[in-house]
Amino acid sequence: MTVEVRYRPEELTRLPRSVRYEKGKVIMIDQTLLPGEFKTIELGTVDQVAEAIVTMKVRGAPAIGASAAFGLALYADTTKAKTKDELMDGFYSAYDRLKNTRPTAVNLFWALNRIKKLVEENLESPLDEIKRLIVAEAQKIADEDVEANLRMGHYGAEALPEGNVLTHCNAGSLATVQLGTVGAVLRVMHRDGNLKLLWVDETRPVLQGARLSAWEYHYDGVPLKLITDNMAGFVMAQGKVDAIIVGADRIVANGDFANKIGTYTLAVLAKEHGIPFFTVAPLSTIDMSLKSGKEIPIEERKPEEVLTCGGCKIAPDVDVYNPAFDVTPHKYLTGIITDRGVVYPPFERNLKRLFKEEP
Amino acid sequence: MTVEVRYRPEELTRLPRSVRYEKGKVIMIDQTLLPGEFKTIELGTVDQVAEAIVTMKVRGAPAIGASAAFGLALYADTTKAKTKDELMDGFYSAYDRLKNTRPTAVNLFWALNRIKKLVEENLESPLDEIKRLIVAEAQKIADEDVEANLRMGHYGAEALPEGNVLTHCNAGSLATVQLGTVGAVLRVMHRDGNLKLLWVDETRPVLQGARLSAWEYHYDGVPLKLITDNMAGFVMAQGKVDAIIVGADRIVANGDFANKIGTYTLAVLAKEHGIPFFTVAPLSTIDMSLKSGKEIPIEERKPEEVLTCGGCKIAPDVDVYNPAFDVTPHKYLTGIITDRGVVYPPFERNLKRLFKEEP
Repeated sequence: MTVEVRYRPEELTRLPRSVRYEKGKVIMIDQTLLPGEFKTIELGTVDQVAEAIVTMKVRGAPAIGASAAFGLALYADTTKAKTKDELMDGFYSAYDRLKNTRPTAVNLFWALNRIKKLVEENLESPLDEIKRLIVAEAQKIADEDVEANLRMGHYGAEALPEGNVLTHCNAGSLATVQLGTVGAVLRVMHRDGNLKLLWVDETRPVLQGARLSAWEYHYDGVPLKLITDNMAGFVMAQGKVDAIIVGADRIVANGDFANKIGTYTLAVLAKEHGIPFFTVAPLSTIDMSLKSGKEIPIEERKPEEVLTCGGCKIAPDVDVYNPAFDVTPHKYLTGIITDRGVVYPPFERNLKRLFKEEP
Repeated sequence: MTVEVRYRPEELTRLPRSVRYEKGKVIMIDQTLLPGEFKTIELGTVDQVAEAIVTMKVRGAPAIGASAAFGLALYADTTKAKTKDELMDGFYSAYDRLKNTRPTAVNLFWALNRIKKLVEENLESPLDEIKRLIVAEAQKIADEDVEANLRMGHYGAEALPEGNVLTHCNAGSLATVQLGTVGAVLRVMHRDGNLKLLWVDETRPVLQGARLSAWEYHYDGVPLKLITDNMAGFVMAQGKVDAIIVGADRIVANGDFANKIGTYTLAVLAKEHGIPFFTVAPLSTIDMSLKSGKEIPIEERKPEEVLTCGGCKIAPDVDVYNPAFDVTPHKYLTGIITDRGVVYPPFERNLKRLFKEEP
């Protein structure tokens, strides 16, 4: 499957990359200040990069992966190591520091290990060459993320009907290096004049929809309306939603997928109203080792997230259930938009086929 | 239809009446302080009662109706009127003051007009007798509310299966004079040992579930878990909900009903998971003049409710859609629990029959 990539990133968004690297500094949007303030910060040490990941100045799996990779690039450009032994000692300590920031972030480990492997394969190269390889590979990781999003954006824009689209959580530019997964699809649709109105679910408990999606799509001039999560059904009942698109944290071999809590409810509502329901994620999100969604472990997070909202205490201290994600069975899915094309049912067969094809 | 009322109110709740009257003072729970502080306030003037309604120290249609009625009782007990003309001048001015507190509160007008009508029918009685009639009628309005809830509680407890129940918003003791509509059903089930776990939806945007339901059922020792609204579907998918029960703002002739936003989504989820779905409301909530839910006007409220949460700003200033209620078609309903029994499909025929029966 191929798609014609008709737009460059700068034709689709006014937002800079969430994270980028210039010699000696990692530059990122401080997402903890959003939506109140839009500010980029410059980080000059590996420790600062690690701290930015820990304190969630940067969030979203692909953005975290790129940030960690740039942390290693920063090390390579700033180390005073005179021998390869010194270089490698410092490299492993930077690697460890960055690795221990977010314990469950798959992209983080993936990006760090990709650079580590490259370095270990090139230990015979001159010291300066190894440093150059690290920086180039980090840059490549970030560039590849943007390119994958750009392809997903164009694939998705062909798959979705024009009209009003509803989304949940934030799988936008801020969650990735740039454009987003869902964000790229919405931006290509908007650029084509096919996105009439975007419905943004606020996405309790952590409010990624209200804080981040509402902010970034509004920033890019997309016409939108913010709603609380429990309004989505009534909006659909009124015929005001033509398609639903969400991201994915993990897609398994049969097409079942885990995503932010609330996704499953939207899937059921989509079915009841006959509304096309898509997820969008790069191939790296698809885990063919798991057969069905029943095998996906669900992270339960701390009660404080439900007992508070945007920093305000809103409930008495009662028991809480706080699953961070839910699992949506593939029977509710219209299609899976990937960087290699859109997969339609039967998902099990077609996902397998996708992985067999040459890229 | 009859039901055996097995429990008295004080056997079902530790909560006092949300509003009550003792000679010369209206005593109410100040709900604006909940869930942080549980405090009752005493109001000695009609103005104070009106202000308490305006500032939502008391909320919930039946509780507001009783409060307004007690406002007139307070007038009758404290007026210095020496002639019937003076009495009636003061009465009408108290009536107007109380009437202009909440423009769309049907129970408010209903309670005030019930007393006004009684007074106007008894203008020939002695001055002291008229005053006595006002106080007695206000008391009767409050007592009837508790009695109706008690009957609904016992009817509902027979209709719902034992196990885990999910509810939305607050149709509990705090919304009525005592016990609640949904609240009475849950309390009778709990007393009978048939309520294993109560799932409480937080109910954005105004959080009546998190602030009020979680507080009042926890206060009465009901085992519960608070969730955000978008978690309900996933909880159902895991088989952890055996029945859903919600209140109603208006039920029409075919069984369609309006209730707090989010109710419709729960109804669709209930259908998808084969979970019994009930609404509970007194006969006075059923409006036989409207044929279908399509005729129910939906109040849209101010954007600030969605842009903030519990007092915190949570989103940038983007467009918002904020319908206060949604309409659930009767096809999703298992039954309507009223103070005269449980109505099952076909609703149009059976509601008509209910109204024809002698009470």
